[in-house]
Amino acid sequence: MPLTLADIRAAHTRIAPHIHRTPVLTSATLDALCGGQLFFKCENFQKIGAFKARGAANAVFSLTAAEAAHGVATHSSGNHAAALARAARLRGIPAHIVMPSNAPRAKVESVRRQGGAITFCEPTVAAREAACARILADTGARLVHPYNDYAVMAGQGTAALELLEQAPDLDLVIAPVGGGGLLCGTALAAKGVRPGIRILAAEPAEADDAARSFAAGRIMPVENTTTIADGLRTSLGEKNFPLIRAHVDAIATVSEESIVAAMRRIWEVLKIIIEPSCAVPYAAILEGKISVTGLRAGLILTGGNVDLDALPWMKK
Amino acid sequence: MPLTLADIRAAHTRIAPHIHRTPVLTSATLDALCGGQLFFKCENFQKIGAFKARGAANAVFSLTAAEAAHGVATHSSGNHAAALARAARLRGIPAHIVMPSNAPRAKVESVRRQGGAITFCEPTVAAREAACARILADTGARLVHPYNDYAVMAGQGTAALELLEQAPDLDLVIAPVGGGGLLCGTALAAKGVRPGIRILAAEPAEADDAARSFAAGRIMPVENTTTIADGLRTSLGEKNFPLIRAHVDAIATVSEESIVAAMRRIWEVLKIIIEPSCAVPYAAILEGKISVTGLRAGLILTGGNVDLDALPWMKK
Repeated sequence: MPLTLADIRAAHTRIAPHIHRTPVLTSATLDALCGGQLFFKCENFQKIGAFKARGAANAVFSLTAAEAAHGVATHSSGNHAAALARAARLRGIPAHIVMPSNAPRAKVESVRRQGGAITFCEPTVAAREAACARILADTGARLVHPYNDYAVMAGQGTAALELLEQAPDLDLVIAPVGGGGLLCGTALAAKGVRPGIRILAAEPAEADDAARSFAAGRIMPVENTTTIADGLRTSLGEKNFPLIRAHVDAIATVSEESIVAAMRRIWEVLKIIIEPSCAVPYAAILEGKISVTGLRAGLILTGGNVDLDALPWMKK
Repeated sequence: MPLTLADIRAAHTRIAPHIHRTPVLTSATLDALCGGQLFFKCENFQKIGAFKARGAANAVFSLTAAEAAHGVATHSSGNHAAALARAARLRGIPAHIVMPSNAPRAKVESVRRQGGAITFCEPTVAAREAACARILADTGARLVHPYNDYAVMAGQGTAALELLEQAPDLDLVIAPVGGGGLLCGTALAAKGVRPGIRILAAEPAEADDAARSFAAGRIMPVENTTTIADGLRTSLGEKNFPLIRAHVDAIATVSEESIVAAMRRIWEVLKIIIEPSCAVPYAAILEGKISVTGLRAGLILTGGNVDLDALPWMKK
């Protein structure tokens, strides 16, 4: 087994000094609306504002001194970039981050604040991979992939480990799926701790590669997508897919409208700020794609980094 | 003494089954920016989305069966109305709520959801008081004033009681001041538990009646104000003012710009939704009106009921 509960427990011990043990919120209002009991694991309150702080910290602090000597590198336009820069800063090693030239200013600043060395490239997969390969060759840095990496998956799984300590008798856990890092860690952690639990994934219908791959039995990459759930635009990783087939019970897809409605309802009722990507599991409940009637469901809220000047319900 | 620590402790025991023990949030980022340690008591997560749930519950559950028999009444266009309607529903008695005809739709719906019986009146103080007097005469209901009421003050003080259990060694507490209900309860609770603690108040410069009254030694009512901190547009109550003179150390005023900047920073960094009114204490730190350098400061975040379609940084 490339990833086990023991790995995730070891990850938790390793990263505990560097992350928040985030709270779990509940709401009588939301429970009454869905007929079940919902437990929201608030990774929007995590360091750098997203669960990605966990996986990056585990990857960086798992390296031997020799492996870490030349720093780490990644390509990401999102929260993983800031998370890796932060973990590297904490360990005192360089972080080389390849970002597309059109990355949002807020994301670029977030990486800079954490001390990451940014290399901009054209916004294509080919340009990104070429830039990253050049940096690895030039610097001898270690690649830390955002999700196609067992140490990253183990780190992401620590959120579910905490969730099941905070709400032990869950019937199911719902996680969003993009590349699959969080989903794999969540499934391994939750089924390891509580074997009968069901693990469900949710993704935008406009980036439904995980659902199609799950049904087809082979990776079907996502086509161009502009889903508002920008954290979920990526395709499943090669290391992630077999774990998802083995440990995930079902994958639901949701509309863009549901994602916005779910995001807004969580803002209004829970009074917390979440990204569109992490509204996707609750959107699956709103759409009736996942039934929680009479059940206790854990939902992982993955992050809270939004542009307050460009909320989806604002007039353009 | 019309209000003592013992009253507030009794209030806490009385209302504990009906309210949330809200969390206290901290942020390394905000601490680094101000040079102190900030502890945010998150009453935005309270029932009905505001600390007002505490005072209304204490007032309603303090009534004898005979006193409660004909229900309760109040005039309020804000969170107290929903809080009183909720408390009355929990006790199984009617709540008569006088609201101005121009009250925001969301506030009206919130009172309706809690089962309150609404009487609309012209949006003037005279019309409001006349409508309320008529209802009291017609129904025999008990008036529960939003702040000029010792049972309400005792209930509001329970937030500070919890805060000092959650963060025992605070040097100061900052609360916003409108009518003074929260401020009085906070001061009595905090100084009762921890005699050396400092109690500071903050209010909008555009509704600076508390600062002017504090300086003058007599109540100087607020003139017409359109401050964005709509929960703080009221003038100090007669029962509140002597307690504030006796127990509050200083009152700071802040600009509208600081209130919006403080609100936005709390949204962005803490990832929580707060009303403009509860950004006022942090605005006083941002403006340098209250120094927290090297100190541990508790800030009461009073509520999270905002209109997501009309945020202060949105283009009109």
